[in-house]
Amino acid sequence: MSGIFAVYHRDQEDAFEDIYFGLYALQHRGQETVGIATRQQTTRIKIGQNLVKDNFDLRDGDFLAGTMGIGFIENNRHSIEMPIVLDDAILTIDGLITNEGFTLLDLLNHLRQGGSACINYLQSLQGGFAICYMDHKGIIAMRDQKGIKPLTLGQRGTSTYVSSESCSIEAVGGEVLRDLAPGEIIAVTSDKTHIYPSADSPKVANVCAFEYIYFAREDSVMDGVSVYQARYAMGEETAREESHNFEEPTIVIGAPDSGLVAAMGYAHRAGIPYQQGFVRNHYVGRTFSRSGADTRKRDVKIKLTPIRANLEGKHVILVDDSIIRGTTIHQTVQDLRQAGAKSVHVRIASPPVINRSSRESGSISVPEREDLIAYRYSVEEIRKIIGSDSLAYLSLPGLKKACQNDQLYDPYFKENH
Amino acid sequence: MSGIFAVYHRDQEDAFEDIYFGLYALQHRGQETVGIATRQQTTRIKIGQNLVKDNFDLRDGDFLAGTMGIGFIENNRHSIEMPIVLDDAILTIDGLITNEGFTLLDLLNHLRQGGSACINYLQSLQGGFAICYMDHKGIIAMRDQKGIKPLTLGQRGTSTYVSSESCSIEAVGGEVLRDLAPGEIIAVTSDKTHIYPSADSPKVANVCAFEYIYFAREDSVMDGVSVYQARYAMGEETAREESHNFEEPTIVIGAPDSGLVAAMGYAHRAGIPYQQGFVRNHYVGRTFSRSGADTRKRDVKIKLTPIRANLEGKHVILVDDSIIRGTTIHQTVQDLRQAGAKSVHVRIASPPVINRSSRESGSISVPEREDLIAYRYSVEEIRKIIGSDSLAYLSLPGLKKACQNDQLYDPYFKENH
Amino acid sequence: MSGIFAVYHRDQEDAFEDIYFGLYALQHRGQETVGIATRQQTTRIKIGQNLVKDNFDLRDGDFLAGTMGIGFIENNRHSIEMPIVLDDAILTIDGLITNEGFTLLDLLNHLRQGGSACINYLQSLQGGFAICYMDHKGIIAMRDQKGIKPLTLGQRGTSTYVSSESCSIEAVGGEVLRDLAPGEIIAVTSDKTHIYPSADSPKVANVCAFEYIYFAREDSVMDGVSVYQARYAMGEETAREESHNFEEPTIVIGAPDSGLVAAMGYAHRAGIPYQQGFVRNHYVGRTFSRSGADTRKRDVKIKLTPIRANLEGKHVILVDDSIIRGTTIHQTVQDLRQAGAKSVHVRIASPPVINRSSRESGSISVPEREDLIAYRYSVEEIRKIIGSDSLAYLSLPGLKKACQNDQLYDPYFKENH
Amino acid sequence: MSGIFAVYHRDQEDAFEDIYFGLYALQHRGQETVGIATRQQTTRIKIGQNLVKDNFDLRDGDFLAGTMGIGFIENNRHSIEMPIVLDDAILTIDGLITNEGFTLLDLLNHLRQGGSACINYLQSLQGGFAICYMDHKGIIAMRDQKGIKPLTLGQRGTSTYVSSESCSIEAVGGEVLRDLAPGEIIAVTSDKTHIYPSADSPKVANVCAFEYIYFAREDSVMDGVSVYQARYAMGEETAREESHNFEEPTIVIGAPDSGLVAAMGYAHRAGIPYQQGFVRNHYVGRTFSRSGADTRKRDVKIKLTPIRANLEGKHVILVDDSIIRGTTIHQTVQDLRQAGAKSVHVRIASPPVINRSSRESGSISVPEREDLIAYRYSVEEIRKIIGSDSLAYLSLPGLKKACQNDQLYDPYFKENH
Repeated sequence: MSGIFAVYHRDQEDAFEDIYFGLYALQHRGQETVGIATRQQTTRIKIGQNLVKDNFDLRDGDFLAGTMGIGFIENNRHSIEMPIVLDDAILTIDGLITNEGFTLLDLLNHLRQGGSACINYLQSLQGGFAICYMDHKGIIAMRDQKGIKPLTLGQRGTSTYVSSESCSIEAVGGEVLRDLAPGEIIAVTSDKTHIYPSADSPKVANVCAFEYIYFAREDSVMDGVSVYQARYAMGEETAREESHNFEEPTIVIGAPDSGLVAAMGYAHRAGIPYQQGFVRNHYVGRTFSRSGADTRKRDVKIKLTPIRANLEGKHVILVDDSIIRGTTIHQTVQDLRQAGAKSVHVRIASPPVINRSSRESGSISVPEREDLIAYRYSVEEIRKIIGSDSLAYLSLPGLKKACQNDQLYDPYFKENH
Repeated sequence: MSGIFAVYHRDQEDAFEDIYFGLYALQHRGQETVGIATRQQTTRIKIGQNLVKDNFDLRDGDFLAGTMGIGFIENNRHSIEMPIVLDDAILTIDGLITNEGFTLLDLLNHLRQGGSACINYLQSLQGGFAICYMDHKGIIAMRDQKGIKPLTLGQRGTSTYVSSESCSIEAVGGEVLRDLAPGEIIAVTSDKTHIYPSADSPKVANVCAFEYIYFAREDSVMDGVSVYQARYAMGEETAREESHNFEEPTIVIGAPDSGLVAAMGYAHRAGIPYQQGFVRNHYVGRTFSRSGADTRKRDVKIKLTPIRANLEGKHVILVDDSIIRGTTIHQTVQDLRQAGAKSVHVRIASPPVINRSSRESGSISVPEREDLIAYRYSVEEIRKIIGSDSLAYLSLPGLKKACQNDQLYDPYFKENH
Repeated sequence: MSGIFAVYHRDQEDAFEDIYFGLYALQHRGQETVGIATRQQTTRIKIGQNLVKDNFDLRDGDFLAGTMGIGFIENNRHSIEMPIVLDDAILTIDGLITNEGFTLLDLLNHLRQGGSACINYLQSLQGGFAICYMDHKGIIAMRDQKGIKPLTLGQRGTSTYVSSESCSIEAVGGEVLRDLAPGEIIAVTSDKTHIYPSADSPKVANVCAFEYIYFAREDSVMDGVSVYQARYAMGEETAREESHNFEEPTIVIGAPDSGLVAAMGYAHRAGIPYQQGFVRNHYVGRTFSRSGADTRKRDVKIKLTPIRANLEGKHVILVDDSIIRGTTIHQTVQDLRQAGAKSVHVRIASPPVINRSSRESGSISVPEREDLIAYRYSVEEIRKIIGSDSLAYLSLPGLKKACQNDQLYDPYFKENH
Repeated sequence: MSGIFAVYHRDQEDAFEDIYFGLYALQHRGQETVGIATRQQTTRIKIGQNLVKDNFDLRDGDFLAGTMGIGFIENNRHSIEMPIVLDDAILTIDGLITNEGFTLLDLLNHLRQGGSACINYLQSLQGGFAICYMDHKGIIAMRDQKGIKPLTLGQRGTSTYVSSESCSIEAVGGEVLRDLAPGEIIAVTSDKTHIYPSADSPKVANVCAFEYIYFAREDSVMDGVSVYQARYAMGEETAREESHNFEEPTIVIGAPDSGLVAAMGYAHRAGIPYQQGFVRNHYVGRTFSRSGADTRKRDVKIKLTPIRANLEGKHVILVDDSIIRGTTIHQTVQDLRQAGAKSVHVRIASPPVINRSSRESGSISVPEREDLIAYRYSVEEIRKIIGSDSLAYLSLPGLKKACQNDQLYDPYFKENH
């Protein structure tokens, strides 16, 4: 997963500041590398490891001059650093093009010739990807033919934005126009915006289900659906499908921080009080987990501490967004019991993950299939492993209903994919 | 405000790791300087600017050897860096001793002679303070005569802890024993714990009201009362005192992050749905606010973005813990309106702050009295300044009820102090 | 000016370590950006600001895996960061290609087709430059047709090196083979080295005179001549051309650190004692000069302090390599007088610089012509400006004799260039 | 070894800038910790690990306000960080007070009472030390009774300086007045300077021989003798005592960088050309040596590279200041042979070190006696170990003659100490 933020200012405004702030709003999509390239007469580029704040501040605008540019962040260190800069061109890709023999030089040669030259070429490209390219003529943006990866258009005055998520366009004071359609190419030049629609693509984007479940930021709206409201609705649907009768006193808490919104939805639908279960310590450094192994022995709680006063003597419904390996939720259940919970009932606001991404998508970086706990074990077995008193998952129809999209890209939940 | 964490291991365990993790759990009490001193045959000390994570990692244990030690964090750069180390003694003070002519050398001379030598001396000391001292004989801890500043005792096996807050003792796996009583001296040596009670002090600690309102961490229990539950109850009491009738659709949100718990209490008591109003971006650097002035102009939202999908067309009850200058809440109200809120009703879960700390306490660092918005303006005037549709504060009796302590140190809310 | 270091290991040895150490030995050629790209099946790249030590350590070898790669450092922040990586290709250029309409995409297209496809193309390229390219087939290295920029071949076992200077090849334990000839292309593949000589180019490289005067490191041998010995000989030639008779006691000192070797040569030839005139403080940070303006007022000496005991009462011959603007040498002369020198005689071991690089070379980044002190003033006027008792320059024939090359690239010293 | 720099500005000038620049000039005396304390009405202190430049810049003057203050650097991380600050007092000590039962609290109590109260107390203190103390009344400086540790007085206008070395006083534009005499106490107050001489102490300071050999900076003058000229004279004396006849071509080089000045003196006295043997790479980071073990295997030369063109075919006289363990010089000899030296003759410009500091001095931190190569082996054995063709040391009388002081503190060179 990665994030793109491009701006094309037609007035004389500098691009850097918008890109810089836009990347801050996309930081959840990647924390490993970050790069910004800008251009006017010359192209400038700066790329660094880790976070936006570790590499950039407003003074970088002196070097990164120019009225247009693209920023990029990603979650895994890539073999090739993005943005790619060559002569007057800047190129970024979120996702993976999976055709054999694909080269960036070919892609650049097509893009250099303009949007219309890319129509057939895009139709030949496989995978889940969003491409954003810029040269002296303007921006070319394109989205894979299924619409697996998100890409959004925005504007402010005479400026045009292209970004992975709407929240970043709003963060810089822009107006969100619309998402690119699956397989669509949009070429933005100094005087017009040219749209090259795809004849063959689905009308509704087969957007990756995990964008709603986990990836995207809660204040983004993706393909017409609020991410926050989708998550809240996942909680509500999970409560609607609930079959257990809970004794008093029962509280609902969210697994920090991925399950908080779904927990609110669950609590609201179930009519059970929502409480905060843990305090998160935001002062702990990123490097901390490395030494976690040692300190776990003595049960030192650094990042998360249960609020004993809330939990003691309670039946606790713990809502989370998903279970991948099961190690974190196991620790959470254990922490709740140590803090005095009488019982712990885990509710997952999405279906069991039994599949990593299919080869075609390149969409999500999950562990090998053998490491997925739901691929290897039944729900009852998982319950025993994580140590909870009960465990239930949201159904796939429930997920799609919550996301208001029955065309979600969802190979993760399917047996024979 | 600052934080103390001391450990005296009677076995051969190294002190550093407990202090290091304990300070992480106290980081909310200070972000400007941090220091750790340990001793066995020699005393070692390391002091740095900013956060624990900016200055220490587990490898520092090699240098900071020894089975006992004290860590200290504080919010303002101090004239004298703590812990103070001299010969075999380590000394820290949270708060202020306000006697004229007071010197640290005098204090050290008394402490060097042991707990009993400090009884009369402590009675002569004015202000709000917690002192933790250590030499080869053990720990001497003492709390000011009113109990304004908190100080807690804990143990694990044969080890003794002294800390500003219980959450830090729990974080390292210790058991919380009790708070020091007002004016009490406790001397912990290799074979016993000697208590020197104060004849003149109040039974119930006059603990600073702001510990419950804002300072302390939610998972701490202070003088017998859970900080989380006190804040939740402040929200409930605020709802109980509510006089307004709200139209549908109304939601309750907390001002991020200080008002979240009170907002949950308010929502629960009022029977109005609790929602998340903002997304906080945890990837933004600390240095950011410095450039805020420039970027505010164009209304760039970096640290906090409203969740438009939740707010549009809603009547919003915005709960916060307190108003000091009023600048932040004004911005928050404005952000909510821009995100489509039909009306914004501000509820403050504590009384108006019309006084900075009295001279005797040294307890809280608030602005000059002239900068306190509630000192200069009436509630209705404040409402206009912050731009909300209505504004109400919790009463002082309501606050004391929520904190279950009618002896709170509360000069902040009183006219003629 | 910049520096290239490439290695192609035909065995399974990792390339990173050689590149990392090789770049250390080239750091004098650039302190603004540094980048390393390596490849095996995938290409990895890391680029950073400032020095090698600020960006890399041996652990980077984990990420920068692969048996071949190229490192690059440069003195000015470039519009495009090098090495350039695209698909399986890595490209670096030291210097400037000055043809109008030149694009890197064209260059990459030629290089991708192999060395023979570049012969005519190279002949069409103008400027002073050294190119080093690598893809899965091996290395292609080429040097501009006049040989203005240096480029050297080396080997160790079955490994091949290409570098800007021989010192870096020796630093990693390699054997220096020879410099590339002007206009020569060398293609190194898994089984052979193919040479494409230039028919039209000069036999002896018109290597830039400033490589010997200032750029190159003293332990490099460039186009057959030791840089140290060239500088020592410049000092000797300067003494040979000396017309002044000095009184006793006279000493020779070098301007720190650029004039030290020439000063030794001068002292030896003149039979006058060589002494150290200044102590250089190597503990001062790089950022220091920024605040220099303020501190100069009070004449604080941080980086360089004169050794008063050596200078007091002496006639001092101060030898430097060149004068560009004249500000530094003026300060040095003043410092010597303040430290008690009876007279100061400046001797420059190269001719007056009256020209910046011609357009064709892109070879040296000197100030605008109007800022060159020797372009605007006569030798006697310069003497007055810098405040010395006498001033003399080495002649151009003397320089060429010292460098053992009468074909030096020398537009800097010529009137009508 | 450590360094002290104190300033007492009687006008309203801020102390920070002088201390900051003064410490830069003392950095060679310690690279492990650095601290600065300043005071006016309040005392401020900042202490950090590693170098001045790693911890301070001019902006620190905002926090470190005040017209007087003391800075301190030291070579080993100390158990107690200096400067020590307590109430209005600032205290630093270079060296060691070796009395049993000595406490800093006692020392502070005496100093607080003023210079006259310290006379008898100082006479009771054993060891080699220099003390600099400051409170609101001014400075108290004192030097141990033998004068083992250096301490110098300076002034500029109405300002007074106390520093470990004269070079730092000159660096900030001050005038060097004189060294403190052995056992002398100097109390500087707002209106006068009071001197408390020692009746019992030697007239000429028994200053530590290693100050001249290695510790002090070359531009310092210590107890009346220029450090540079002492080192040059050590080289001359070594040549004067020379018994070997060298064949042509012979050159003299200094071991980088400790032997350079002595090598010049040797070359001058012997009439043999002085040359530069190595290039030192100043761009290499401090952390580098840690990985040295690995890279040595492949003989990668990072910090120092021999200049082959100077060495090939030459008989090389390699001059160094001292041999402690012998590992460095062994590597240097080996490097010279690899670079083509026909023979390598090592000359040490001081006597064999057979003793670490006696208990009374605390003056020098050398390895355990068993690690001193000259304690365990004869000169001929050492020659074999380091692999040179010949080896000779300067005699102790020669050393004293070069330093113009026959009372040098010299236990390092004596059998039964």
